[in-house]
Amino acid sequence: MSALTFPALPPSEPQGADLLAHERSRTTFSVHDLSNYLYGEEYLERQEKMLALIENEPAFDKSNRYFLGRTERIAGALRKDYALVKLSQEQKWTPEEFLQADILIDEPGPFGLHRGMFMPTLASQGTEEQIEKFLKPAMRYEIIGCYAQTELGHGSNVQGIETTATYIPETDEFEIHTPFLTASKWWIGGLGKAANHAVVMARLITAGKDYGPHAFVVPIRSMEDHTLLKGVMAGDIGPKFGYNTTDNGCMWFDHYRCPRISLLAKYSSIKPGSGEYVKPPNSKLSYGTMVLIRASLVGYARIGLAKAATIATRYSAIRRQFVDKDSPKMMGNQVIETPVLDYSMQQYRLFPIIAAAYACHFTSKEMMRLYYLNMKNMASGNFSLLADVHASSSGLKSLTTTMAAASIEECRRACGGHGFSSFSAFPLMLQDYAPNVTWEGDNYMITQQTGRYLFKSFRDLVAKRASGKFSASAITNPTLAYLNTYLDNPNLKCPVTSAAQFHNPEIQLAAYGHRAAHMVAEIVHALDVQKRTWNSMLVEIYNASVAHCQLILVQNFILGIRGEMTQPEGVAAPLLSDTAKAALTDLSDLFALHMIHKQPGEFLTSGYLDAKQISMMGQAIMDVMEQKIRPNAVGFVDAFAFPDYYLNSALGRYDGKVYEAYTEMATREPINQTEVVEGYEKYIKPFTNPFGKKGDTIQARL
Amino acid sequence: MSALTFPALPPSEPQGADLLAHERSRTTFSVHDLSNYLYGEEYLERQEKMLALIENEPAFDKSNRYFLGRTERIAGALRKDYALVKLSQEQKWTPEEFLQADILIDEPGPFGLHRGMFMPTLASQGTEEQIEKFLKPAMRYEIIGCYAQTELGHGSNVQGIETTATYIPETDEFEIHTPFLTASKWWIGGLGKAANHAVVMARLITAGKDYGPHAFVVPIRSMEDHTLLKGVMAGDIGPKFGYNTTDNGCMWFDHYRCPRISLLAKYSSIKPGSGEYVKPPNSKLSYGTMVLIRASLVGYARIGLAKAATIATRYSAIRRQFVDKDSPKMMGNQVIETPVLDYSMQQYRLFPIIAAAYACHFTSKEMMRLYYLNMKNMASGNFSLLADVHASSSGLKSLTTTMAAASIEECRRACGGHGFSSFSAFPLMLQDYAPNVTWEGDNYMITQQTGRYLFKSFRDLVAKRASGKFSASAITNPTLAYLNTYLDNPNLKCPVTSAAQFHNPEIQLAAYGHRAAHMVAEIVHALDVQKRTWNSMLVEIYNASVAHCQLILVQNFILGIRGEMTQPEGVAAPLLSDTAKAALTDLSDLFALHMIHKQPGEFLTSGYLDAKQISMMGQAIMDVMEQKIRPNAVGFVDAFAFPDYYLNSALGRYDGKVYEAYTEMATREPINQTEVVEGYEKYIKPFTNPFGKKGDTIQARL
Repeated sequence: MSALTFPALPPSEPQGADLLAHERSRTTFSVHDLSNYLYGEEYLERQEKMLALIENEPAFDKSNRYFLGRTERIAGALRKDYALVKLSQEQKWTPEEFLQADILIDEPGPFGLHRGMFMPTLASQGTEEQIEKFLKPAMRYEIIGCYAQTELGHGSNVQGIETTATYIPETDEFEIHTPFLTASKWWIGGLGKAANHAVVMARLITAGKDYGPHAFVVPIRSMEDHTLLKGVMAGDIGPKFGYNTTDNGCMWFDHYRCPRISLLAKYSSIKPGSGEYVKPPNSKLSYGTMVLIRASLVGYARIGLAKAATIATRYSAIRRQFVDKDSPKMMGNQVIETPVLDYSMQQYRLFPIIAAAYACHFTSKEMMRLYYLNMKNMASGNFSLLADVHASSSGLKSLTTTMAAASIEECRRACGGHGFSSFSAFPLMLQDYAPNVTWEGDNYMITQQTGRYLFKSFRDLVAKRASGKFSASAITNPTLAYLNTYLDNPNLKCPVTSAAQFHNPEIQLAAYGHRAAHMVAEIVHALDVQKRTWNSMLVEIYNASVAHCQLILVQNFILGIRGEMTQPEGVAAPLLSDTAKAALTDLSDLFALHMIHKQPGEFLTSGYLDAKQISMMGQAIMDVMEQKIRPNAVGFVDAFAFPDYYLNSALGRYDGKVYEAYTEMATREPINQTEVVEGYEKYIKPFTNPFGKKGDTIQARL
Repeated sequence: MSALTFPALPPSEPQGADLLAHERSRTTFSVHDLSNYLYGEEYLERQEKMLALIENEPAFDKSNRYFLGRTERIAGALRKDYALVKLSQEQKWTPEEFLQADILIDEPGPFGLHRGMFMPTLASQGTEEQIEKFLKPAMRYEIIGCYAQTELGHGSNVQGIETTATYIPETDEFEIHTPFLTASKWWIGGLGKAANHAVVMARLITAGKDYGPHAFVVPIRSMEDHTLLKGVMAGDIGPKFGYNTTDNGCMWFDHYRCPRISLLAKYSSIKPGSGEYVKPPNSKLSYGTMVLIRASLVGYARIGLAKAATIATRYSAIRRQFVDKDSPKMMGNQVIETPVLDYSMQQYRLFPIIAAAYACHFTSKEMMRLYYLNMKNMASGNFSLLADVHASSSGLKSLTTTMAAASIEECRRACGGHGFSSFSAFPLMLQDYAPNVTWEGDNYMITQQTGRYLFKSFRDLVAKRASGKFSASAITNPTLAYLNTYLDNPNLKCPVTSAAQFHNPEIQLAAYGHRAAHMVAEIVHALDVQKRTWNSMLVEIYNASVAHCQLILVQNFILGIRGEMTQPEGVAAPLLSDTAKAALTDLSDLFALHMIHKQPGEFLTSGYLDAKQISMMGQAIMDVMEQKIRPNAVGFVDAFAFPDYYLNSALGRYDGKVYEAYTEMATREPINQTEVVEGYEKYIKPFTNPFGKKGDTIQARL
């Protein structure tokens, strides 16, 4: 018995390659110009260079990725992580080059948290001595670390973790201990199998007092042979929805002793002997890192949206189904089935996702700029930006990762049955993206942080306006600006009387601003006047955070197209051709209007828009999608500049040869390597040919 | 090196078992009474009996389910399907008992489509002779079949399939052929490895004319040794998002000959020799099966909703996080963290899902009743019910499977990080449920069928009202009833002035009816007066179908509680205790009001509700959730009566010992069977101990 060979037939006409070529010929702007505007020449060149370096390296090969079980995938990821570090050391890659390679390979691995959390924590919380002892060997991968914070019983509530680290003055040591099953460290990436060190968050107890969670760096596996050290038990937590190439682990300490230097002591420390606790100077400093991580998740949401949209859009230009009787497609004299991208429902599903990817691109750029500006400010004692940036980054992390997860699934479904095949790339993408809605702050929970800031801003503004010492022109903060506009006239109505007027960005911003401010005002009233409890308002608080952050996305999209986005110091503002600018403006209109049209409730209850306007808006959206965005749809996703190696999708191929690639991938399925399935003798033959008759074919029976 | 042993610590207090016991002590109704009302005594006894028979059978063991790769899972599923058939034959199970066992085992397998599509197709479209030749051996599993309709290039548009079956008068045979790659049969469950026969949909070509798709039953693998027959190539299509225990397959025919008896000829046939085509009598007859399948998908949606809600609700009563400062929980004198089920956001996420499971339960019951009634009617030539039942079943399939898929994911996220673990049961559940939104009619596409019916009903009604020959009292069809109420007064306003009034079911039904009718009226106006194209209206049509079907769900929930639901002939109306009726009424209120509150847009634009009423409704929802539903939440999910064996979830266990079970499952992870990971020597040691130093421990370095 040999492997199956599937026939090499051509698809029926028209061919995918021709259809995509036709789409590309209709694009009204230069795709390369738009890519350049998004990423810059340097990034695109770096991507090209790194792609050439890794694409044909066996350790980074993706051709078997969809066939492997977890055990094989973990083994492959370890090999991949090893090869990546080795190659980067040999070729002396810059951090940007490393990141680029890592993105292209697109597989979370056992060393990921060593780079993503272990080393950054040492760098930001370690003393000079600790940096020398732990961070430097970690940079050479002699030490491989993980970040052990979450416990079985505590995730979001870090203050509630139960692992203890008790200072023992007699030996100048800490004793780390796991008192309960709920105190088991859990979910720790890299801990399951790879790490030999861990940053452990544990309750610091000294001189009989509990000072709450602090970070300790401790060895957990032997440097000689990688066996677990005495007093430590650790392993893998088992299979997950996604991230199965990472060894998320669990860990228990049994009266485990480590020296005093294990406590990361840049901010707080213990005096030897007495065990006296020395307090950190300013707890606000640690918010900086959180902002960075959340801002970078906005960037990853952009990638998720763009990748999913690329695959679904290209495939929808190729996939044909039914004939639209009102407007049949012709090829020569023949009526052909209509490409699904021509159906208004498909456009309504996909085009807003393309638009959202661009929206998140500009917002992630802006968030990174604000992060660096804020860090610079804080270093000189200026904390004025922190609250706004922290609040926005929380709400945006929640909103954009929720959008991205939903959009990947929507794109998967928009590919019909074939989106369910692993070869579409959607299943793995969906599974590996999923944790984004939970980690770094659960997407429902962290919107409370955004809410708190909004309500405080509103209360302060109301008080200031009442004080007489108020000048509207002095407002520079955009949150205060829209809240103030609302307070000037809470009963403002939208002046729009025709669909076309909705393309005015000022109208769009006014609608979003009025709605968000109205929601904030209502919540503050409920809390302060009606004395409702915080808990009873959590749904409204979440919705207010969404409203605030949708406004930010709309705002940054508009500024991003105009080239009016503030640049980081020393960076020239990018240039955008007029044709690309016009095309992006269509997308920005769609982004702003579609979100209103899809869920108009709050815009209506805020009193700004009325039912007639919502109905006009529906017409405006359909028109812009059909007439303006449809011809550019493939161009918009091409501009994301994702190589086929990165996409790893039969349906999303740049060349449009989707069915050929799909069939070829199926021939590599392991159970297709024999003609007759392995269990036949035991599980099928007893029914179908119990007496082992020769020549008992159906042909003979008929 | 040996397997890892994780410590057997107890969780910190309070224990899950105590928390669930406390929840159960608060339930205001008898859980057993409610289960009885839902399922009947007979069903519950049968479940008990079948559970005892299969739970300890090795072929049905679930303890390793989450660890296996696809190849092992396919092998396991084949073994399971074999054992299930064998056992059912030995023990002479009734069809109900077989179905019950299949549901409890809960794993799609290679024989699934043999039972689900192959045999039913033979039964409904085969002649006496074909039933004798094919169906009878199929019932004994001598023939194992699949249903080969979908092709690589055509799914939804069945009329567009490209496989041909050309009648050859000379030999009285058909020649089945795959002309293009796009004509490859694809996605066919059971075809990949198990089936030896297939029902193949192919274009019937005879006497030079193409009569479109017809069903042919043909052998594809040898009855002697299971090798592929000459002229047939078939294999597995590879890994998928879910359903990886089924061998979905692909198939190509190369001028494959089969005798004339292969054409399923109950309705249409070919005259031997001349090849003359004999037309089917009435094409409407085939709609019956479609209604049955879609109605049964509503029932499966109910199961998906109920299963997800059971796990998430039980775990949310155990999981504690943060202290709600306005209302801290106490255990003795100690403040403990608040169970997440006490947070209003968690309630807003989960309780509507519990309610939706009940809503789908009653609607699925009603759809099955209508299906049987309609079949009986059609048999005597009465087609009056068909259009309404077909339209509702399409829209309900779309709405309820969309709800269920979203709800399973919502429940997964509501379990925080642990919902991401395979041991929660959510990942596999989500993956295996996902195809429901695509198969048996893509959830967007099929709503056009609902739309067409609604618009036709509306136009007919308007014409009838204008004709003068109209009597409102003669309306028995509920769709016409709500359309007629709307036409009586399209500007009707909701009279509600206090939150409490929203608990009136007549008000709820009026709101849903007015909104749905308004949407239908607007679309008919756009199509007929504004002459907009069907394609440009697809989004509105989808929304109208959702509105219509939400009304049906609300309606059936209300009738189901009242015991006013029409019973199938000869079945006694079930009894419901007053306490359970009161509790279910709270759920029904929540179901109706939550959908309005979450997406109030159309209720506002229809003019029936205003912003103030929406805000009042928010208060009504929060109150009913906190005061009425919260104490009964665990009781409501217990009443679904899912055994732990079925749930297979560490988090959803009846006994509440979630962390113990979770940790125990992790010990069985294959990569935990060795202490040091297999790739250590090659991929870690070169960095951490390149010179193989003995005693090079970090302790020695420090």
